[in-house]
Amino acid sequence: MVIKPILSEPVRDADRTRTRLLEAGRAEFAEYGIAGARVDRIAAAAGCNKAMIYAYFDSKDGLFDAVFSAHVQSHLAAADFDPYDLPAYAGRLYDIFEDDPAVMRLASWYLLERAASKPLPAVLAANAMRLEMLRKAQSEGRLTTRYEATAILVLVQAMANSWARLNPEFRTAQPDRSLRRHAVVDAVTRLLAED
Amino acid sequence: MVIKPILSEPVRDADRTRTRLLEAGRAEFAEYGIAGARVDRIAAAAGCNKAMIYAYFDSKDGLFDAVFSAHVQSHLAAADFDPYDLPAYAGRLYDIFEDDPAVMRLASWYLLERAASKPLPAVLAANAMRLEMLRKAQSEGRLTTRYEATAILVLVQAMANSWARLNPEFRTAQPDRSLRRHAVVDAVTRLLAED
Repeated sequence: MVIKPILSEPVRDADRTRTRLLEAGRAEFAEYGIAGARVDRIAAAAGCNKAMIYAYFDSKDGLFDAVFSAHVQSHLAAADFDPYDLPAYAGRLYDIFEDDPAVMRLASWYLLERAASKPLPAVLAANAMRLEMLRKAQSEGRLTTRYEATAILVLVQAMANSWARLNPEFRTAQPDRSLRRHAVVDAVTRLLAED
Repeated sequence: MVIKPILSEPVRDADRTRTRLLEAGRAEFAEYGIAGARVDRIAAAAGCNKAMIYAYFDSKDGLFDAVFSAHVQSHLAAADFDPYDLPAYAGRLYDIFEDDPAVMRLASWYLLERAASKPLPAVLAANAMRLEMLRKAQSEGRLTTRYEATAILVLVQAMANSWARLNPEFRTAQPDRSLRRHAVVDAVTRLLAED
């Protein structure tokens, strides 16, 4: 006979509510941004009262920060940053942007609407971790020192998400996915090749 | 004695009002996007009645399209697209994004808020013109055919505006402007170099 852990039940309910709010918030923010998002729509999508948003996250801005921080962490894990094989990393990143348009949208809203607010610890940590890995690879002689580590990160990210930033008028004229992906991987390879 | 052309006066007033509305609209849209922009703020900044916005542009969306189309045309002229020297073009583009944050903001709002609407003729024309110039340079043997013309355009644009898309947490850690610019120009040079 399994003994049901009665006391932990409210905790698990709370976790589930929090998770549902983060998921509903992610979809709402990706679509409408921070200013355009509506807490009543998020609460309805999460199947709970909007008072829960304030209870868990203080404010709509607090929910956005929680959504974006969770997003940065899961995005980092999925992209599996590898300073020793940046072309392959760029290919994975390309796939992520291609498969989930919400990724580019969340990043863009973040830049447009939150740049003036205080830094998000999750973003600071992600930047610091990747720069440290790049500098280590450079000091080991396994990554070009032609560019400063920050420039490598910035250029590789930009190349990987270049197609996701294509203006909509272009979409009908673009080459097929395998060619788009190949262009990204090949371009990063050439960027980092030693002469 | 100069004879004042009385009949053309209302036309010139109309032109001035239209220009002021476009300028005020550009600033408002760059800051708040399409959904967040307020026509009464735009009218106040332009020093006219908000009925003029509807008279000239039909709607807030119509004003955005006019602002963005004018922006695309002036941006194209300023960047001076050159398929025979894309690294220099990328450097000019870098400077434009660096000197006027509104350029990246307008492009981002456009992607986020207008991608589902009907294509803007000014954007279609800008795409078609640049692709045609790239293909001509390729057919003359003056530009690599390693990548399809669309991929070249997409990658060069992405590299040129890579620093402008940096997350704000990064800004304090970035190298100085001359190094950022050099990284862009050098990266585009390597991308297009023949082996």
